[in-house]
Amino acid sequence: MKTLEFTGGALVILDQTRLPDKEVYLPLTTPDRVREAICALRVRGAPAIGVAAAYGLYLGARALDRLTPETARGVAERLASARPTAVNLTWALERMMRALEAHPGAPREALERRLLEEARAIEAEDKAACRAIGEHGLSLLRPDMGVLTHCNAGKLATAGIGTALAPLYLAHEKGYNLRVYADETRPLLQGARLTVYELARAGLDVTLICDGMAAAMMKAGRIGAVFTGADRIARNGDAANKTGTLGLAVLARHFGVPFYICAPTSTLDAACPDGGAIVIEERGAEEVAPRGYGETPVRVRNPAFDVTDAALIDAIVTERGILRPPYRL
Amino acid sequence: MKTLEFTGGALVILDQTRLPDKEVYLPLTTPDRVREAICALRVRGAPAIGVAAAYGLYLGARALDRLTPETARGVAERLASARPTAVNLTWALERMMRALEAHPGAPREALERRLLEEARAIEAEDKAACRAIGEHGLSLLRPDMGVLTHCNAGKLATAGIGTALAPLYLAHEKGYNLRVYADETRPLLQGARLTVYELARAGLDVTLICDGMAAAMMKAGRIGAVFTGADRIARNGDAANKTGTLGLAVLARHFGVPFYICAPTSTLDAACPDGGAIVIEERGAEEVAPRGYGETPVRVRNPAFDVTDAALIDAIVTERGILRPPYRL
Repeated sequence: MKTLEFTGGALVILDQTRLPDKEVYLPLTTPDRVREAICALRVRGAPAIGVAAAYGLYLGARALDRLTPETARGVAERLASARPTAVNLTWALERMMRALEAHPGAPREALERRLLEEARAIEAEDKAACRAIGEHGLSLLRPDMGVLTHCNAGKLATAGIGTALAPLYLAHEKGYNLRVYADETRPLLQGARLTVYELARAGLDVTLICDGMAAAMMKAGRIGAVFTGADRIARNGDAANKTGTLGLAVLARHFGVPFYICAPTSTLDAACPDGGAIVIEERGAEEVAPRGYGETPVRVRNPAFDVTDAALIDAIVTERGILRPPYRL
Repeated sequence: MKTLEFTGGALVILDQTRLPDKEVYLPLTTPDRVREAICALRVRGAPAIGVAAAYGLYLGARALDRLTPETARGVAERLASARPTAVNLTWALERMMRALEAHPGAPREALERRLLEEARAIEAEDKAACRAIGEHGLSLLRPDMGVLTHCNAGKLATAGIGTALAPLYLAHEKGYNLRVYADETRPLLQGARLTVYELARAGLDVTLICDGMAAAMMKAGRIGAVFTGADRIARNGDAANKTGTLGLAVLARHFGVPFYICAPTSTLDAACPDGGAIVIEERGAEEVAPRGYGETPVRVRNPAFDVTDAALIDAIVTERGILRPPYRL
């Protein structure tokens, strides 16, 4: 199982919309196909879409008639518009653009090579960040602990061993015998389809629950900590993550369970003072609307993310270490 | 649309597992078929299964070779074992048994007539209780309010206009212009399939959300009150209701939104001191387990209910009036 890999001149992604039924790998050779894969959540997870977009920009740059910062910027902007909430997407693209702009007048071949190197560096750094997050986050776990997670912030969301799931993987290697509870995460069931898939495959003890069951599990004392990822973290520590995360954080506080966010520093948005400034993607009603209503319109809200107040987050685990409130990022 | 009706010697129920696709009415003429309909959630909702079980006992009594309290008790026990959590089921059956036991030595025809009368009385009283709950609950609503509800506690859960939805129907008649938010209510989607169906059909403004979106809706100030039903209320006010209700009550408290439970007094269990004594039905894993795992076993929890602490319930609305904490029921 490999979430993404640049090989043979193509970005090969595992099509996550097909999981857990089939492991279908798609070779993407144009930025439009990379963009489509991001929009359709074939590749998803804030760090993974950053890496995918970086390779997408390289693929686009290679195909341009003339490769200049201006022409490349057009490709970058189109990729950046794929999804609005995860800041890692624009972060990776901006980093690629800076690599390009740093070599004015360089030969085309050198520029292309530089872009490929930068995309590979972004991937490698994400991989390293995942492991470092895992090592820092491990200190928050204890043997036999019950851990609740939401959506998928694992291998399938990154180029490495995940963000929220990284500490769990390292704990498993150490024989911690965790009991992991995975929220199914409606509407797209990333918990049921992806988190259960990758954790069970790696031999962890994982139990699937519906999102509405988290409260009862906490009340019953089954949850020792909640670990989630994030898509954008504001300077004050407010964090956007998959819809349902805010509710978990409130429940965790009520039941005295620590609530942790794990994310690489590429998820911190220095331009964003607080959660109110984070754009929340509203996705199509068809993701939520039940079958059977035929032509009858059913009014639906489908915000893909919500914002958890910094005050509800007991720690933010990054590759550089564990941050505690009050956050000043 | 009629949830249930005893006519032509049969209990005719609307098969709720087929909604919203099709309105299929099933005539049930044996207690075993009534029991199956309750187990499979063809008829569901605490008050409605009480009424259905009462008719089921009548149907069973009619078919017995000898009709005595002892033989009828066997039928009642089998019906009572259909689902463990909603107390209305055993309440209705005990009431039927008392009607039978009150006439020792009466002719069989008279006993059967008495049982049918009692079942009809249970149905009529439920209908009246719904309306009274609606009238009391109306005082908790204001024009243009946003109201969140969970699962289905409406016409489809009762013989009347519902419990939690009854005040909403009456408010709608008065032109209150409520904005109703319906949690889809995983795993069986009673909110999406049933609440949206019946409210939209009645012309109310209803918006479907995933269970995990309730927190963001409250944070955004869209929810002025939460109304849910209940399946069993302990003497201290702890209330079992559809899985996910506890989480909503915690969120409501956190965001300063009043949380109300609406239920007829037949839902109060005087034999139950507190929520810890309530048996929570664990339903089959197949209701939760996602497709696509093939033969790979996926560990699942599927408690159909949770227990909301009395301290989180701002009021319990019954047909007799509005109860406020501390509850001594």
